[in-house]
Amino acid sequence: MNKICIVGVGLIGGSFALGLKNSLNKSQQLHIVGFGRNEAHLQQAQELGVIDAYSLDIAKALSGAELVLIATPVNSFKGILEMIKPHINENTIVSDVGSTKGSVIAIVKEVFGEMPENFIPAHPIAGKEQSGVQAADGALFNNKRIILTPTDNANMQMIARIRELWEALGAKVEIMSDKTHDDLLAMTSHLPHMLAFSLMDYLISSDANALDYAAGGFKDFSRIASSDAVMWRDICLNNSEEIVRHIEGFTKSLDKLSRLIKDGKAQEIEQLFLNAKIARDDWLND
Amino acid sequence: MNKICIVGVGLIGGSFALGLKNSLNKSQQLHIVGFGRNEAHLQQAQELGVIDAYSLDIAKALSGAELVLIATPVNSFKGILEMIKPHINENTIVSDVGSTKGSVIAIVKEVFGEMPENFIPAHPIAGKEQSGVQAADGALFNNKRIILTPTDNANMQMIARIRELWEALGAKVEIMSDKTHDDLLAMTSHLPHMLAFSLMDYLISSDANALDYAAGGFKDFSRIASSDAVMWRDICLNNSEEIVRHIEGFTKSLDKLSRLIKDGKAQEIEQLFLNAKIARDDWLND
Repeated sequence: MNKICIVGVGLIGGSFALGLKNSLNKSQQLHIVGFGRNEAHLQQAQELGVIDAYSLDIAKALSGAELVLIATPVNSFKGILEMIKPHINENTIVSDVGSTKGSVIAIVKEVFGEMPENFIPAHPIAGKEQSGVQAADGALFNNKRIILTPTDNANMQMIARIRELWEALGAKVEIMSDKTHDDLLAMTSHLPHMLAFSLMDYLISSDANALDYAAGGFKDFSRIASSDAVMWRDICLNNSEEIVRHIEGFTKSLDKLSRLIKDGKAQEIEQLFLNAKIARDDWLND
Repeated sequence: MNKICIVGVGLIGGSFALGLKNSLNKSQQLHIVGFGRNEAHLQQAQELGVIDAYSLDIAKALSGAELVLIATPVNSFKGILEMIKPHINENTIVSDVGSTKGSVIAIVKEVFGEMPENFIPAHPIAGKEQSGVQAADGALFNNKRIILTPTDNANMQMIARIRELWEALGAKVEIMSDKTHDDLLAMTSHLPHMLAFSLMDYLISSDANALDYAAGGFKDFSRIASSDAVMWRDICLNNSEEIVRHIEGFTKSLDKLSRLIKDGKAQEIEQLFLNAKIARDDWLND
């Protein structure tokens, strides 16, 4: 691969670029071009050595690129896809890093009329509390999971190319359907975020001073409630069905525990807590 | 004060002892005696310099003590109070560090027939993931809140003495009713623990492999699900009414969010998340 265009050079796009640069042999040459709306950000990315060049002109940025990676919020995808559509051909691999995949595929179909064979949706399950290119880290994806959700008609060679790129960054690549991805992420990421946001909502609406008595455990538990509101609003809108379904499922589990407490079922409560502890400790040690 | 007896020399009892020792002037003498069932633990506490001596004989341990601090799980209180009752008099200050206060007062009343004037219930809002005397830390209570929940008939001088001791350890002492305490702790500590335990319960019952896709945010969020199952079973049994009430309140908040997501109410979702983020960030910076 000789040229890659990254649309949106923030934490994820920047870390992808840095990781690729670090993975190259001395003999390999790869030109990474950034595209975005904010020239100051792109300039900073270039100064940090994250990208080799940038352009505010999408035609120039894409010219000769073998891969376009869209690393902007999912809600910007429609505009971006419409913008890149005239400047790519069936040999250009297009991929993304959006955290909801069904919605991405729906947007791609809307813009292209059908799912192009050369669009390989992807989601790296990795992040940081910080955002922006100044937080970019070439090792961010090392040992992290990257989920590809290609549609049935996707070009097999392009899937393999995308897999190789992520694996060069140390990532563990898995392929699954967008439905499975969205279901899994709703459970393990979106639901916990909803619980943390809702807990804060409940506490501030119940007793504004209650937080004065919160301790260390609360700090860790509530950390994800400090996540970006706009990004999480969009995730909710883009994966609403799965999130609502898992909130309902969780509510049943919580209601079961509430009834055990109300009925003083000591043994069942202890067993539930013990199973929870074992599952978490096992997960941690994996 | 010349002699203090600590019943249960674990993390909290041991940290209290260490903190007091560190706070003494050179001219001050304070003899701290440990009592417990496990001689090996008491020996370790003495070797670590946490206590000056120990006894497995409650009469000896209490002889001449001006303060007895009960630092064992709340569910052991009945037996301990029955054991110490014959060996204390109205001048002996009795206090505890139990994390539910209404239940402690109920047990004390059961054993003594009424609430003795010299029993000053207390709860230090401080802890560590580790337990046991080897984790004891004289600075554990520094800048942490200690809540005293004396009943109306409590001896004012004894309340003042207990306050002074905790303040000598750097703690911020507050006085409130046991009802207020149990309500606040149900919100800020017990409820988050129930959510974390329930989330693990839901995930393992829904899809045993889902956890493979959990990332960094999940690690912090679920940390409190690794808490001790027996201790949390007892907290549930000892503060069941408040916990159940706050689970119900929380469920309404979560249900409200679920409906906003179902209805695609972008602006309201964003506002809810933003308010949650602001409340947490403000709390953190306090």
